[in-house]
Amino acid sequence: MASAATKLPLSSLLQLSRTAVAAAGRRLIPNLPFSARGYSKMAGPIGNNDHNDVTRVLFCGPYWPASTIYTKEYVQNYPFIQVDEVDLEQVPEVIHNYHLCVVKNRRIDSDIIAKATKMKIIMQYGVGLEGVDINAATEHKIKVARIPGSTTGNAIACAEMAIYLTLGVLRKQKEMDAAVKQKDLGLPVGETIFGKTVLILGFGSIGVEVAKRLRPFGVKILATKRNWTSNTVPCDVDGLVDKKGGPEDMYELAREADIVITCMTLNSGSVGIVDHKFLSALKKGSYLINIARGLLLDYKAVFNHLESGHLGGLGIDVAWMEPFDPEDPILKFSNVIITPHIAGITEYSYRTMAKVVGDVALKLHTGEPFTEIEFVN
Amino acid sequence: MASAATKLPLSSLLQLSRTAVAAAGRRLIPNLPFSARGYSKMAGPIGNNDHNDVTRVLFCGPYWPASTIYTKEYVQNYPFIQVDEVDLEQVPEVIHNYHLCVVKNRRIDSDIIAKATKMKIIMQYGVGLEGVDINAATEHKIKVARIPGSTTGNAIACAEMAIYLTLGVLRKQKEMDAAVKQKDLGLPVGETIFGKTVLILGFGSIGVEVAKRLRPFGVKILATKRNWTSNTVPCDVDGLVDKKGGPEDMYELAREADIVITCMTLNSGSVGIVDHKFLSALKKGSYLINIARGLLLDYKAVFNHLESGHLGGLGIDVAWMEPFDPEDPILKFSNVIITPHIAGITEYSYRTMAKVVGDVALKLHTGEPFTEIEFVN
Repeated sequence: MASAATKLPLSSLLQLSRTAVAAAGRRLIPNLPFSARGYSKMAGPIGNNDHNDVTRVLFCGPYWPASTIYTKEYVQNYPFIQVDEVDLEQVPEVIHNYHLCVVKNRRIDSDIIAKATKMKIIMQYGVGLEGVDINAATEHKIKVARIPGSTTGNAIACAEMAIYLTLGVLRKQKEMDAAVKQKDLGLPVGETIFGKTVLILGFGSIGVEVAKRLRPFGVKILATKRNWTSNTVPCDVDGLVDKKGGPEDMYELAREADIVITCMTLNSGSVGIVDHKFLSALKKGSYLINIARGLLLDYKAVFNHLESGHLGGLGIDVAWMEPFDPEDPILKFSNVIITPHIAGITEYSYRTMAKVVGDVALKLHTGEPFTEIEFVN
Repeated sequence: MASAATKLPLSSLLQLSRTAVAAAGRRLIPNLPFSARGYSKMAGPIGNNDHNDVTRVLFCGPYWPASTIYTKEYVQNYPFIQVDEVDLEQVPEVIHNYHLCVVKNRRIDSDIIAKATKMKIIMQYGVGLEGVDINAATEHKIKVARIPGSTTGNAIACAEMAIYLTLGVLRKQKEMDAAVKQKDLGLPVGETIFGKTVLILGFGSIGVEVAKRLRPFGVKILATKRNWTSNTVPCDVDGLVDKKGGPEDMYELAREADIVITCMTLNSGSVGIVDHKFLSALKKGSYLINIARGLLLDYKAVFNHLESGHLGGLGIDVAWMEPFDPEDPILKFSNVIITPHIAGITEYSYRTMAKVVGDVALKLHTGEPFTEIEFVN
């Protein structure tokens, strides 16, 4: 969804969906926009709706309602584009009627894909595609795409949220609220971001925006990334990051960190990556912020490190199950704060992404090439 | 108190306490540290405790408890320094026993000052001295001082809090909390700081730190200040501020602003300065953040502009009465958030200020000159 992890470099996409790419029988050329790699030639087989037909867009489920509302608004003057929001459990029954699917947080497995007989593109309203069986989609000649966060304001919105959650945890949001209710003044004593060492796990679009904003707070910035070659980092990385590492360096970098911010993509390699080993490597009292995907964190390990006091606080916009049980014991810790998966949800980013989805629907209808989405198969 | 307004340039201090300065019979030379202006010569008459005596330090009232605790810790190895915390209402009865007074939020009027027969210095644990009758203190040969925020981390802590409150209001903190409780996802749709125009009222130590941190969020920054001469602005102001104005320009600048952050000192000229005229000049839906002093805002005007929807949100660390009634109607608006006057209260800033107060007590005891505080009379 929108408060999603980093935009993957194409080299990583290659790695991620190697089977899919092989099945597609062509070779991706990294670091060029997809359309420039001859995707327009593929517009035919994808955008093959009869122009007299209606192109039907399926939004899965009622969550992140603004995504549907804004997209409907954007295409309201095009009667040949039909946008529907369907309950999560009804998706398998109706998916055969649709040409474009916006998954939101619906799990789109091979059984559902097999039913999607008219489907051309499955996409996310944002970047996270961990719920989509990409191989199955490829087998059924369905393209799968994300909206790169760097061009829509999604990464910016997520980065701002990461700063908000960091400050909320450092200033002890729950204790502040309690102090107001109890008519205390000047309590609790919080901590500044100033002077801290921040470890950004996953230095993609969001990680970059987080670092840019944290820099003038007076911090040391550490970051991990699979590929630090210059063409995957769209900024002056040496001015932003004091110490760079690969994924394997996260445990060593953890020893220096006061604050960890997870901005990684969720995939089979990153599920539960913030585990007992990683958390134990942190200094006592360190803070953990997650604006990417809930399952990056090992629940039990995080819980135990909160209970022991080794973790000084936790701020999450994403959870292990969503919507998350508001009575979950992890939320009972006074140093844990949660927001309802809205990191990427701002007027600006959501209107921008509605335009992307609407334009994809229009181009699907007319057979034009797609330029603003990033295909992963 | 700690989350106080800007460090005044000395020229402003001159203006603020002209009578007091005249009474003191000497001329302040602006822009030099006070000690460099011959204050050491005055250490005699101030620091005239008999070295065998105990120097007694009075902390007024139970609020901001960490100020007392940290100061006691700092001087714990000096048995000739006695630090006491006294209830607000008992202050008049006991003040005659003390040499140094940390006012916190006690109003120190001329009646109380008349009783403070051993008092040498009245100071703030921070910068805000609006509760102290400076003229009365001068008449009784008591020096009044603040701790400049720029050297203690106070300004930094306050600036971080301003960012927190701004993000909290833009992302609709109360609605986020409600969404979590109701198991909603992806609601509310908030706004980014990115793309906004921010008006900083009072470009002193805190205002400068706010601007430094806001810059990479992608904003236009407007600011007002009484005196923009280079020696009162300790930074590259042109790189930080897109449009500068004097206090009289605040209404015109308001027309451009999406977000207003008040960082001014409270004095007779600034009480209620955020009034109907100013708020009406703002664009509909603008946001107001106050981390300086509650009385800078005209309560009724702010309330009315929230009620009409003209003001899009309010984030305050300081209130009109403190502690503020948690049942006050203004807190019932879903777009109003409040914190318990903790903007300056962080481990870092409070330990630093405890050292300043402790050192003042020690120097008062030994008769050494004071270097880390700023006298206003």
